[in-house]
Amino acid sequence: MADKNIPYKIYLEESEMPQYWYNVRADMKNKPAPLLNPGTRQPMKPEELSGVFCDELIRQELDNDTREYPIPQAIRDFYKMYRPSPLVRAYCLEEKLQTPAKIYYKFEGNNTSGSHKLNSAIAQAYYAKKQGLRGVTTETGAGQWGTALSMACSYFGLDCKVFMVKVSYEQKPFRREVMRTYGASVTPSPSETTEVGRKILAAHPGTTGSLGCAISEAVEVATSTPGYRYVLGSVLNQVLLHQSVIGMETKLALDKYGVKPDIVIGCAGGGSNLGGLISPFMGEKLRGEADYRIIAVEPASCPSFTRGVYAYDFCDTGMVCPLAKMYTLGSGFIPAPNHAGGLRYHGMSPILSHLYADGYMEAVSVPQTKVFEAAEQFARVEGILPAPESSHAIRVAIDEALRCRETGEEKTIVFGLTGTGYFDMVAYEKFHDGTMDDYVPTDEELAKYRAALPRI
Amino acid sequence: MADKNIPYKIYLEESEMPQYWYNVRADMKNKPAPLLNPGTRQPMKPEELSGVFCDELIRQELDNDTREYPIPQAIRDFYKMYRPSPLVRAYCLEEKLQTPAKIYYKFEGNNTSGSHKLNSAIAQAYYAKKQGLRGVTTETGAGQWGTALSMACSYFGLDCKVFMVKVSYEQKPFRREVMRTYGASVTPSPSETTEVGRKILAAHPGTTGSLGCAISEAVEVATSTPGYRYVLGSVLNQVLLHQSVIGMETKLALDKYGVKPDIVIGCAGGGSNLGGLISPFMGEKLRGEADYRIIAVEPASCPSFTRGVYAYDFCDTGMVCPLAKMYTLGSGFIPAPNHAGGLRYHGMSPILSHLYADGYMEAVSVPQTKVFEAAEQFARVEGILPAPESSHAIRVAIDEALRCRETGEEKTIVFGLTGTGYFDMVAYEKFHDGTMDDYVPTDEELAKYRAALPRI
Repeated sequence: MADKNIPYKIYLEESEMPQYWYNVRADMKNKPAPLLNPGTRQPMKPEELSGVFCDELIRQELDNDTREYPIPQAIRDFYKMYRPSPLVRAYCLEEKLQTPAKIYYKFEGNNTSGSHKLNSAIAQAYYAKKQGLRGVTTETGAGQWGTALSMACSYFGLDCKVFMVKVSYEQKPFRREVMRTYGASVTPSPSETTEVGRKILAAHPGTTGSLGCAISEAVEVATSTPGYRYVLGSVLNQVLLHQSVIGMETKLALDKYGVKPDIVIGCAGGGSNLGGLISPFMGEKLRGEADYRIIAVEPASCPSFTRGVYAYDFCDTGMVCPLAKMYTLGSGFIPAPNHAGGLRYHGMSPILSHLYADGYMEAVSVPQTKVFEAAEQFARVEGILPAPESSHAIRVAIDEALRCRETGEEKTIVFGLTGTGYFDMVAYEKFHDGTMDDYVPTDEELAKYRAALPRI
Repeated sequence: MADKNIPYKIYLEESEMPQYWYNVRADMKNKPAPLLNPGTRQPMKPEELSGVFCDELIRQELDNDTREYPIPQAIRDFYKMYRPSPLVRAYCLEEKLQTPAKIYYKFEGNNTSGSHKLNSAIAQAYYAKKQGLRGVTTETGAGQWGTALSMACSYFGLDCKVFMVKVSYEQKPFRREVMRTYGASVTPSPSETTEVGRKILAAHPGTTGSLGCAISEAVEVATSTPGYRYVLGSVLNQVLLHQSVIGMETKLALDKYGVKPDIVIGCAGGGSNLGGLISPFMGEKLRGEADYRIIAVEPASCPSFTRGVYAYDFCDTGMVCPLAKMYTLGSGFIPAPNHAGGLRYHGMSPILSHLYADGYMEAVSVPQTKVFEAAEQFARVEGILPAPESSHAIRVAIDEALRCRETGEEKTIVFGLTGTGYFDMVAYEKFHDGTMDDYVPTDEELAKYRAALPRI
């Protein structure tokens, strides 16, 4: 059944691995809107950010012009521990679906963080170390980012303080234990250890926490502890820059075999994987060199692209972080407790938001039972147990492949398989037991949070 | 720090993947002792085994002569989903240990079963399907074999009934859920669903089960249900045959770079990984073409090689299976509840037992806190969270590398990293909390089970 020339898995040689990150902003005619100071509502200056972020990361965050960032040797060495990641030709899935479509997926789960998050974690830890810092703070929801950062900090001998959304902390004790294995300290959020945490607990006793709230706590600790900075695993421009390594490898692997995708699909929470995966393809599209359909897939229970608004909003619940212009559901929005996977952030990467607003990409939202159906179908034929997040992309890839079966078109579909679901078995269990439902926010609910958006 | 010519990870090309399994028995002058009928105590004839095992697998089990078994195309296609597995040069570990030794590990954890077990599971499922069977039964302890078999059966559309040692069933609900994702039914053992299970429950109310007891139940269901056979993930000759793919790939990868190991190390429970990993190296040693130090590592709490006897014994608690001549602690032996990892079977592969008795390999036993120390050290520098089983091999590889630091010898060490520890976080937690201890069986305890060995 296999195409003669294309193996099941395409691995680049070490010597073929990307030597630079690609900054898609350099090819955007309309640049993403700047971050605003939450107090003055004026564009953030580097010096205003320097208490929060590492200096080099601020430079990367604000740099809309440099196209290529050489990847430092120490990071390239670390990448060699788990990269290049395989680009897999989904021969077995194609056969199962009886589709003429050719399906590829870039699998980022073959490392202990279980996802692509490590690509940016190691970069951020490297720059923190280089600046002579003692440690970093962060938040984590599902736990992939926290795990990745713990691994990266352990490698460079940095202290790592993770605020983990309380509901995840309780439901995923094993994630916490992996972080401990890498020497990180993990605090359930909201906690009594920060001022903002105590405030949130006083206002909402018994709250199980949210990403926005854990961010506020992590930022407070970073800015009030000498030698610490805050790091973030998604949304930010710098993260998309680091994650471009996914797309670069994907494109190099496809080019090796003369394959040109018609459709590129990725799941979208804050945009870290999608933004990285599509970068070089989007670059060609922006430069008018090629055209691709690019599809962002989000959960119907947290639909920032498809039901949010494009506006300035706070990145965190405590409103201590800069304002970003992005597709957002409002910083008070938290997905309903029935929502199983990650992808639960209220906003979306400013870069992706801008590209979406300018019509360079599409977005669809999918209900979670359909996502888990796709996950199980995929696991059974491709042998990988996918993360719920990744399974959003699988769902739409399968849908597109089935459409090809109807039309007879031999489209080439590439999607991002961000990670594995080993720590998500409670969600799989609900799916098997039939206790998972597809509740989505009502228009009234969304209107409430929208009304609370800052007026800028 | 890297050797210029040797990458961090050596991947074979698809075209370089082994096309046959290697049967080490063909090169053994003294063949392993035959299986005996538990009733007559005479060597088992193929027809006596045919109610229990698939026909082709019986042929492989009893065949001491055929050196090469071509791997059927369907299995080679499946292998391409997750093989070749990487042979990793542990540059980061070498640097951390400041050792002149060169360390390589063959990593079998990059598949959803989380271990090498899939190599034999897919073969056994294939032959069951080819024989027109409806399904297979098996037992599982830690759950890796059960997961692997579930994946393999789902791929070929076979029913899969797994008896899971009760204590694991309760402590590892997520393993069970992965098996359900692949459509398997999972029953805690001992259960009321079999005659032997009811007998064991009557004799030992409240027992949390053992591998030997789950085997008895699985065999009973296989032999009493039309269209079913029993399959086993370790110990048997056929399993070592299939697992030879590990060693073949390892040797091909090393040969590509002109590397010759001095020491080959593997963890040993029933012997499936160790036997597979060392096969081609042992073959050269048996044929007098090369010499290697080959080291089996076992837990001090279940020390079949180092404290067992080489004798005929039952493979299961219910004494319904054939007798095998092997290093054994007695079929009644169960490791103390403080034992965290797998590697808990009372006996050892007859092939490996024979090679050990003939002086072709060494064996050492290690206490579990030292194993977890090695696991954590490895995770922090190599970025892979190892399974407790695999960490036995890591422990001894590190010890040998540290010895090289003392002597200045630049030895080349290869070890088998059988899998990942994502489902073993309870054990890691105990280690972090300092509640893990190193209890080992007393001489009196071992003597008791030894006295109960059958007299043959």
